[in-house]
Amino acid sequence: MQAHVTKKTLSEGLGILERIIPSRSSNPLLTALKVEANERGLLLSGTNLELDLSCVVPAEIQNPASFVVPAHLFAQIVRNLGGELVELELSGSELSVRASGSEFKLQTGDLAAYPELEFPSHADATLSASELARSLSSVRYAASNEAFQAVFRGIKVEQNGQTARVVASDGFRLALREFSAVGEARNLIIPARSADELVRVLRDGEVRLTYGEGILGIQTDRVRMNAKLLDGDFPDYERVIPRDIKLTVTLSAAALKEAVSRVAVLADKNANNRVEFQVSEGKLRLAAEGDYGRGQDTLEVQQEGTEPAMSLGFNAKYVLDALGPIEGDAEMRFSGPTSPAIFKASGDGGYLAVVVPLRV
Amino acid sequence: MQAHVTKKTLSEGLGILERIIPSRSSNPLLTALKVEANERGLLLSGTNLELDLSCVVPAEIQNPASFVVPAHLFAQIVRNLGGELVELELSGSELSVRASGSEFKLQTGDLAAYPELEFPSHADATLSASELARSLSSVRYAASNEAFQAVFRGIKVEQNGQTARVVASDGFRLALREFSAVGEARNLIIPARSADELVRVLRDGEVRLTYGEGILGIQTDRVRMNAKLLDGDFPDYERVIPRDIKLTVTLSAAALKEAVSRVAVLADKNANNRVEFQVSEGKLRLAAEGDYGRGQDTLEVQQEGTEPAMSLGFNAKYVLDALGPIEGDAEMRFSGPTSPAIFKASGDGGYLAVVVPLRV
Repeated sequence: MQAHVTKKTLSEGLGILERIIPSRSSNPLLTALKVEANERGLLLSGTNLELDLSCVVPAEIQNPASFVVPAHLFAQIVRNLGGELVELELSGSELSVRASGSEFKLQTGDLAAYPELEFPSHADATLSASELARSLSSVRYAASNEAFQAVFRGIKVEQNGQTARVVASDGFRLALREFSAVGEARNLIIPARSADELVRVLRDGEVRLTYGEGILGIQTDRVRMNAKLLDGDFPDYERVIPRDIKLTVTLSAAALKEAVSRVAVLADKNANNRVEFQVSEGKLRLAAEGDYGRGQDTLEVQQEGTEPAMSLGFNAKYVLDALGPIEGDAEMRFSGPTSPAIFKASGDGGYLAVVVPLRV
Repeated sequence: MQAHVTKKTLSEGLGILERIIPSRSSNPLLTALKVEANERGLLLSGTNLELDLSCVVPAEIQNPASFVVPAHLFAQIVRNLGGELVELELSGSELSVRASGSEFKLQTGDLAAYPELEFPSHADATLSASELARSLSSVRYAASNEAFQAVFRGIKVEQNGQTARVVASDGFRLALREFSAVGEARNLIIPARSADELVRVLRDGEVRLTYGEGILGIQTDRVRMNAKLLDGDFPDYERVIPRDIKLTVTLSAAALKEAVSRVAVLADKNANNRVEFQVSEGKLRLAAEGDYGRGQDTLEVQQEGTEPAMSLGFNAKYVLDALGPIEGDAEMRFSGPTSPAIFKASGDGGYLAVVVPLRV
């Protein structure tokens, strides 16, 4: 096998794979990358057992062949090469990597022992890649990284005819985004960590989804992925979204984020970073108190609803997370001082967060 | 006490102090900052017991007074404030911090218990601040962060009539830079970590040094510092600098850095990151070998000297560190395959590094 490839395209492809492939593993084969040289170029693939990924790097190939190399080492060598063109040559079990004045010889691994990675080629649903990426990253924060219950470490994807919805919750708060997408009805839960990788890989254009048994296939023009799905029932989150809104407050999301961050400096870390929200007479007063003193901030707001005033305590971090994806004006919808509150973009926008106030 | 000050200047001053003052300490007073409001403005000062630092922040003051506040908390509050102007007001033991819609009330600490920090006002030597900063940062890498012998964790400063010299060594390698500076002859050793802070604070203009008992006073227009000096005898480093040069090799420092980094990817981390340097016939061949394969790189060089060829093994990291401060062409002066080698900028420049080759 001989391949000629530009350093830039090969580096980019290896960069995508490098994020998935573990740099250490009790099974050293999993730290390797499989390279299949064929008429289309170099097909690079790898897995972390949760997520399989493959991508094509255009290259000029002679004598097609496949091999397995240590992924991170190979990527590091290619990244450091001088010049623009890289030459790869496989002779026996040795891979030569050449560019300008450099030559590297790498031992290849056991191709036969490398796990078989298969990627579906048909599509059950077609979505806008940027919409899916944006939606997954808007709700990602609400998924837990360490919750014991697997579903809290995942993001639920619901496809319903004309719309799709992604939902995440760690049991204490919830984030949801809805967007237009056509496809057959389906509910599944992707591990949040796999969603992170998906977001990094998705760009413009379309993404095609394939629903398998416990597996979601994802294809874009550049890459193919298989994400292992999470088992279990996602909680009935609709029940948590309050319907009986007593007070709605509208103000600039940026101003609110700044004021909450400011006051939260004094909030007690051992008391859930508690910040008081007091609404009355067109003003929102934020206050926090801790070991070293107290801080407060007053913001002008637009208020509406049956209740003329309300006081609620929130974990500052949860409020900042909930406001994260909101640009322009934010709307806070309060159903009572100890009932769940909604944070959303003013107007519509598809994104909505639910945060439960702290008890007194 | 009442003070009006711009958020920008106060933040900058606090930022300098924050780097010195520990965020945690068995003596909580050390995590505090002393503020003296006087006719010149706010004099902020703090210490980590190795280094005392004070800086003046211009401000409009009424009813001068002094107080002590938690340094990092105060800095964080000021950084997060909205608007451009900050108002400080001390009433009793409570400091109010006000800006646009915000108000913070902080408990101040025990002023009487705060250590007395005194800064000298006369100067024993005057140096260019940028030259001193550049020189200290050029040699910093060669000082150790954890060596048992204190002098190896320091940077020696030698003042000799018309020139000053800074030298650092961890016992395995040495770095030195000489520059013009007028002052009385003096030798002292600054802790490398204090030198790091000094480098961050030094800008343009002049720096005035005051030689105290076990203490170096440092004054610029913005700040005053006292650095506790290290005791002990710095090794006789002149002995290590080879005089009998058998082969001199000149090439682009950047090209050499890149080639060493490239080849070093394959070097064995458990064998000192060994990279072979083979010089002959106007070429430098770099080679490394590890568990996964081997790499080599060939560079055109200019060579001179009594020996037509030489092979040496170096720790790649030490070579990269030594080349770090060199721009343009680098000169490597070899005295033998197992004798110390010099790395310096071609021509002069005042900087010089000594690296000992690895044994075969």
